Formats: sequence, C-alpha cells, structure tokens
Amino acid sequence: MSKSIGYLTAKLAQQIDEELMSTAGAFSLDQLMELAGLACAQTLERVYKKEKYPRVLVCCGPGNQGGDGLVAARHLGMFGYQPTIWMPKPGSKDIYKRLQAQCTNMKISTLPPSSDVSTLRDALARSDVILDAIFGFSFKPPVRPPFDEALPLLTKSGLPIVSVDIPSGWDVEKGNAEGVGLNPDVLISLTAPKEGVREFQGRHLLGGRFVTKALEEKFSLNLPEYPGSDQIVELPRDGSQKL
Amino acid sequence: MSKSIGYLTAKLAQQIDEELMSTAGAFSLDQLMELAGLACAQTLERVYKKEKYPRVLVCCGPGNQGGDGLVAARHLGMFGYQPTIWMPKPGSKDIYKRLQAQCTNMKISTLPPSSDVSTLRDALARSDVILDAIFGFSFKPPVRPPFDEALPLLTKSGLPIVSVDIPSGWDVEKGNAEGVGLNPDVLISLTAPKEGVREFQGRHLLGGRFVTKALEEKFSLNLPEYPGSDQIVELPRDGSQKL
Repeated sequence: MSKSIGYLTAKLAQQIDEELMSTAGAFSLDQLMELAGLACAQTLERVYKKEKYPRVLVCCGPGNQGGDGLVAARHLGMFGYQPTIWMPKPGSKDIYKRLQAQCTNMKISTLPPSSDVSTLRDALARSDVILDAIFGFSFKPPVRPPFDEALPLLTKSGLPIVSVDIPSGWDVEKGNAEGVGLNPDVLISLTAPKEGVREFQGRHLLGGRFVTKALEEKFSLNLPEYPGSDQIVELPRDGSQKL
Repeated sequence: MSKSIGYLTAKLAQQIDEELMSTAGAFSLDQLMELAGLACAQTLERVYKKEKYPRVLVCCGPGNQGGDGLVAARHLGMFGYQPTIWMPKPGSKDIYKRLQAQCTNMKISTLPPSSDVSTLRDALARSDVILDAIFGFSFKPPVRPPFDEALPLLTKSGLPIVSVDIPSGWDVEKGNAEGVGLNPDVLISLTAPKEGVREFQGRHLLGGRFVTKALEEKFSLNLPEYPGSDQIVELPRDGSQKL
C-alpha cells in the first residue's frame, strides 16, 4: 500500500531542525543552509529557465529562511541568472553577514535596507520571477512592516513566484485561511511539507536531501525517493500526494 | 577562438582555496567541503549506478581531501549506495569529527583506524567501486605508511576507481611520473584541474561550482559552462580539453 507523505506542524519542523543539528545529526547550520539554498535555486531553475526569466528578485526575511534565500541567490548567480536581493531587515546572525558577503563578492546587488517599499516596487518592474524566502516555518501572524505592504506588491506584480517552504503570509498549519499570503506558482518544501500546504495546487517540489532514515521513520515522513543524485524531487499534483 | 581550460600548480590551487575563504570569498570550509563532496558523490553516481555498483569503498586521507570523502560518503548513502569508509589516519580538525559523526548517524560504517592494511584488503573484497579521497593538491611525495601499502592493494583489486582532484600518489604537477600512483577510471577535479592531470585519459569531470567570475579571470581558469543547475560538468576526452 502506498503511504501519503507526512506533513509537519511548526513544532515538528522545529524539532527536526534541532535534531539535525544536535548530536543525533551533527550537522552545522552552514551545511544545512547550503543544501537547502541549493535546492531552492535548482527548483527555480527547473521551472523558470534563465533564457526567458533571467532577472530573479530574491526576497529574504530576517530569519533562517532569509539565509536560504541568500544561498539560493548565489547559486542562481552561478547558474547564469541576474539575481537581485531584497532584504529589508537583515538578520543579525554572523552567518547572514557571511552569506551576504558571498553574494556581494559575486556582484549580486542587494537593495538598500529600508522600511519604505518604493525600492521594492521599482525592483519588481525590473524582474522576471520572484523567489519568496521571506517567512519560514517559524512565522507567526500578523505580518509586520514592511512585509505587510510588500506581500500585496509582490502579488500585484503578476510575476511568477517560487516560495520556499511555506508561502509567505500563510499560517504554517492553517494555510492561507486569512487570505493575506502570497499565491505562488511553485513551492519548494524543505525536509518535508508543512501542514498548511496540504491544499497547495501549484507545482510542488521537495528538497533537503539530508534527512536520515532514522529521522524519517521517527517522524513518519514517508518521503518520496529522489531520482539519482538529484537534490530535489517533484511531488505528484493530484492533491493527495500519494507516492 | 576557443581557449583551453587552465591547469593549476599546487601553489595556485592553495591560493584559490585561501581566496575563497578570505574576505574576497567569505566562504566557510563547511560550505566549500559540502559542495565539493556533493560533486564527488554525483560524479560517482553519474558513472557507476547503484544497481550494479552498490558497495562503495570511500578511502579518506588525513587532510581536507579526506573531508571531501566523508561528505561524499554521506551523500552516496542518501543516494542509496552502501558506502564504507576507510580512514586509517583520521584528521584532528573538528570538522572531520563532525563529518564522520554525520556518517555514523546515517549508519555508514567506518573501518577501525589501523596501520595494518588487512582490514582494507578484506573490505576491497566486499566492494564494487572505490572513491579515492586519500591525497589532494597539498600532497608531497613520498607516500607514507599505511598508504604506501594501500595504493598497490587498491590497484590490484581491479575495482573501478574514481579519484578526487588528483589521483593518489601522483605528483600534483608532474603526474604519475614515478609510477607509484593509482590509475583511476574517472577523475573529478575540484575548482580547476591540476597540472599533473593534463595527460589523464579517463573520464574527467569538474566540480566546485563556487568559483566567482572575478577569481576565474584572475587565474585565467577558462572554466567550461556547467549545464543548467548541475554541480558537475564533464570535460571533453580529446586530451586537449578545448572548450
């Protein structure tokens, strides 16, 4: 009998991250973020080819999800895209500073941090696709400034959106019940999908190929098999996510 | 006019690594090793499929190349191979201990460290393919125990060998002039090929897709274009390595 993939609550997602970095996993944040960000960049590249969508606006929040976005921006630059980073509230952790320096060294430009969204509006007019790395599984409503103004701007732009882990503005468990979140075309879930995206109807990929069998069984994740040496795998679109 | 790919001396290879981790690059060793090890695992997977070659003996030296090997072993485990690690002289750096713990947590076994090569001989009899991550670009002859005994054993096993960066026992610049090195079927060069492998006749791939355009130009590397979002690219086999 085929089993359905497991969906994670915010608490379980947090617990898996902690286990990966505890003695049971022994991973560093640098490693996990590198693989997660690579999976995000590869997802965007799978769906939106650089010949038609060269200019990627990478929107980064202040937390670890923003870090994934910075890693993705760098890989997209290596793939031949022209990424621009919008990160209005840079995180204070040392790792974000290093990740941003890596982008700057690659001549990837970051819009000046500002609570005014006019720079974002201008950047949207010069972009072909959006990578949404604003809020992750630790997001709790409400959406705070400047993101409360930014999310509607991203939606109104009409540009295709690739969201990381959970579309920004969605409740991690209840989804877009309040209707204030983005409506991405593509979603890249990391380690395992979150409860809130059960009804997501767009293209849905999974990344974070670092979850051990032991963790997978402990949390009944029933992850799909990744093809070959790929770091991402597309989930079926029938809604049931049967594997 | 097509330009030939650049070949690196040991000194230049060291300098590029240093620049990547200096303020000009801002990378951490964790990040670079993760991407390098992933490229090594993906190279092995490209050539030796797990259905026919499930048991990989990952041979790790005491330096950073051994670290790449540990990362590769973990990814090979994620890909569905059954890797076994031979690491007779574990490096003392904290990162090697973490990388090895990650493998242990994934139930990848490591042969007991020993200067006696009999455990290696036994392991070879139970393996389908070898990943050679013993010596890297900082290797200087002569080959010291227990590797002096190990290299001939690896060769005599008749198993296919995938070497990382420089086949073990080769001089980084002069190649296998002394004839004591391995003769791998496949080579995965990292960042750029080394002088010593100009005449290498097997399948030759390149990994380490983190070299910025600025570094590439500074060192006249003339790197080939990686396809799509791939982390490895195969070099032409005509010997000239024209791109």
